[in-house]
Amino acid sequence: MNLQRFSTSKVIQDRQKLVILGTGWGGYSVLKNIDKKKYDVIVVSPRNHFLFTPLLASTTVGTLEFRSIIQPVRESRFRDATHFHLSHATNLDLDNKILHCHSVLNPELKYTINYDKLVIAVGALSNTFGVPGVEEHAFFLKEVLDARKIRNRILTNFELAVGPKIEESESKRLLHTVIVGGGPTGVEFGAELYDFVQQDVAKLYKEQQKAVTVTLVESDRILASFDSRLRSHAENKLRARERFTLIQSSVTEVFKDSVKLKDGTILPCGLVVWSTGLAPRWFTQNLKVAKNTRGQILTDSYLQVLEDKSGSVYALGDCADIADVPLPCTAQVAERQGRYLTDVLNGKKDSKIPFEFKNMGMLAYIGSYEALTDTPDVKLQGFTSWLLWRSAYLTRLGSWRLRMQVPMDWLKTLMFGRDISRFD
Amino acid sequence: MNLQRFSTSKVIQDRQKLVILGTGWGGYSVLKNIDKKKYDVIVVSPRNHFLFTPLLASTTVGTLEFRSIIQPVRESRFRDATHFHLSHATNLDLDNKILHCHSVLNPELKYTINYDKLVIAVGALSNTFGVPGVEEHAFFLKEVLDARKIRNRILTNFELAVGPKIEESESKRLLHTVIVGGGPTGVEFGAELYDFVQQDVAKLYKEQQKAVTVTLVESDRILASFDSRLRSHAENKLRARERFTLIQSSVTEVFKDSVKLKDGTILPCGLVVWSTGLAPRWFTQNLKVAKNTRGQILTDSYLQVLEDKSGSVYALGDCADIADVPLPCTAQVAERQGRYLTDVLNGKKDSKIPFEFKNMGMLAYIGSYEALTDTPDVKLQGFTSWLLWRSAYLTRLGSWRLRMQVPMDWLKTLMFGRDISRFD
Repeated sequence: MNLQRFSTSKVIQDRQKLVILGTGWGGYSVLKNIDKKKYDVIVVSPRNHFLFTPLLASTTVGTLEFRSIIQPVRESRFRDATHFHLSHATNLDLDNKILHCHSVLNPELKYTINYDKLVIAVGALSNTFGVPGVEEHAFFLKEVLDARKIRNRILTNFELAVGPKIEESESKRLLHTVIVGGGPTGVEFGAELYDFVQQDVAKLYKEQQKAVTVTLVESDRILASFDSRLRSHAENKLRARERFTLIQSSVTEVFKDSVKLKDGTILPCGLVVWSTGLAPRWFTQNLKVAKNTRGQILTDSYLQVLEDKSGSVYALGDCADIADVPLPCTAQVAERQGRYLTDVLNGKKDSKIPFEFKNMGMLAYIGSYEALTDTPDVKLQGFTSWLLWRSAYLTRLGSWRLRMQVPMDWLKTLMFGRDISRFD
Repeated sequence: MNLQRFSTSKVIQDRQKLVILGTGWGGYSVLKNIDKKKYDVIVVSPRNHFLFTPLLASTTVGTLEFRSIIQPVRESRFRDATHFHLSHATNLDLDNKILHCHSVLNPELKYTINYDKLVIAVGALSNTFGVPGVEEHAFFLKEVLDARKIRNRILTNFELAVGPKIEESESKRLLHTVIVGGGPTGVEFGAELYDFVQQDVAKLYKEQQKAVTVTLVESDRILASFDSRLRSHAENKLRARERFTLIQSSVTEVFKDSVKLKDGTILPCGLVVWSTGLAPRWFTQNLKVAKNTRGQILTDSYLQVLEDKSGSVYALGDCADIADVPLPCTAQVAERQGRYLTDVLNGKKDSKIPFEFKNMGMLAYIGSYEALTDTPDVKLQGFTSWLLWRSAYLTRLGSWRLRMQVPMDWLKTLMFGRDISRFD
């Protein structure tokens, strides 16, 4: 009995301290799969849950509920609740292996953690490209709180638009949404909004439906990373929609109630959703290591940070880039990198085998039960592709709780429509 | 064809304009059942949804989700979206039948509505009894937003309590909850918190479970309106719980991190939930009609406001009281009154028959699968009573959407535990 105790405590002492920064696709993938008998794991993140980002757009109109696509990071598997820190990482001392942290909830609490191994997976921010007014007036779509703010704004705009004494021009403005950026996030948000208008607004705000308009502003082509035939199909579909406008331009300023385009045009609107790419977080900016032109941390093919001589610091996902092998900033890349790294750390994979990304393909929902499927072997559009889109995401949901919630929400939306109660 | 049209439009012209103030149990009951062919209905309320209040306490810890117990007031049955106003009623001109309103979302928008018949069902506020600090530091539990704030505070307190460098006394303070008021709301919140601690905290914050304490402060007896045997049973159950204290006293001041009792004792705590009774809303206070000592509008047995000579103004629910027949301020009373009034207004019931309240009984959840059932015929406690509690509420949920959501949430909680993700 005593021997047993001793050996257990010995194993604990021998374990290396692995610190994971971030609870997105990359960090969560490491956390879930890492061998907790081998490593003493500490997670530092401003978010105590994992978010299934590909379905985030669905929550902005209530097709899915917010808590249906998040998974708490704390689990009973954790040895001790203190192993998760709701904190920002602020700085890193590579030579002494010390991480500086700042508590999210207690502004006075700044502290340090030392590590044996460190995984940097802090993700990235939305890129405003320095356009004035974006931070103040536009809505991003990266976190659950962003989605909740958008949902609240949409419902608020509808309530205002049907209020007494409203002028027609003001009502029109309120019901005009501008989406900046034609990547998957922008297009999928537009798709969800379209469904909401067709399926729910049509019943609940009958008279106002005709006043609802959407403008998508993209400087290049929409869904640029997709196969050209699929992209053209999506573009034609979107252009064919009533009260939908696709503008090839860029936004140079955002105001409280409008946006300004490159050519000076002012578009009055009630909601601006901004999704034009990524920018490094403050921690990444602050880090004194080699970075690429976009500010991402450069790593070798083993995901080791180039400038760390100790060979114990890894970076992956949106905050990092493999030198010479640039990869897209997607959930898929981050998740695969996390798995690869876990296999190496767990000793399941030879650490001399570099990370290699096999593209499994991309999916995008474009509204009214149509999606695009773009894999190396299959290019698909339409309803079948939509079924594929839904089932692919279902199987990829990381827990049984989500696998139960998401289809229940889909069923609810189908049967009863989306909930337009406003309580923010 | 033309004749048909003419007659339809004639019916519309003949319809009386019925204005309903409030979307709680009373107002929503009138809205749902009123004959829309007979009345041109307008609803004025700061809330565009109905809330199933008896289950609100369950949402504070995530046993149920917020949107699982609310029902949007706007429905496709509505002739036109402009028939619901997201506004406060501010004043009433009884002589000229004019209602003054103030938009919730547009502070500059003040306007009037005239009516043929008016139903006042604005409900009531939580009563602070003028105790200093309550408005600033305590949490009420009347609306979904209140519940969301409480849930966020609980999850925040746990995150803080397990943070690095925390002192034991501070951790203990954060995990101490004070409930002020031992009515059904206070007791049921305590019950939900108890379940959360037993079922989820025990797994997710193992080491901290022993530091979680709850104090219920009640100046009289808890559940005073219940049968004395059931009440004693509940009291014994609560007292037998570890780390639970029932104090017969009252709170004289609430601070940021503590409360002060009548005898001067200071109780350090991380959360104060205040539920000690009702106070009239501003509209009710402002109304120049006869009221009782608690500030409720006095009506006759036909729910007609005593001082309105036109006989076209009704008041019901928590904001009103029938002179000489005082009734408890419960959901049940408000809902029955709403149904009675609808029957009279629809012409289904002789308007000379006064309202009579038949008590269907009361239910209260006390935690760990036990409830109290107090009906005229049956007095029940324990697990069977809990089953009754759940099934009674299930059948009373006002829509199929809720009837689907609520048991799904119960199942989810049973299978996967409560979601402790914090994103507020």
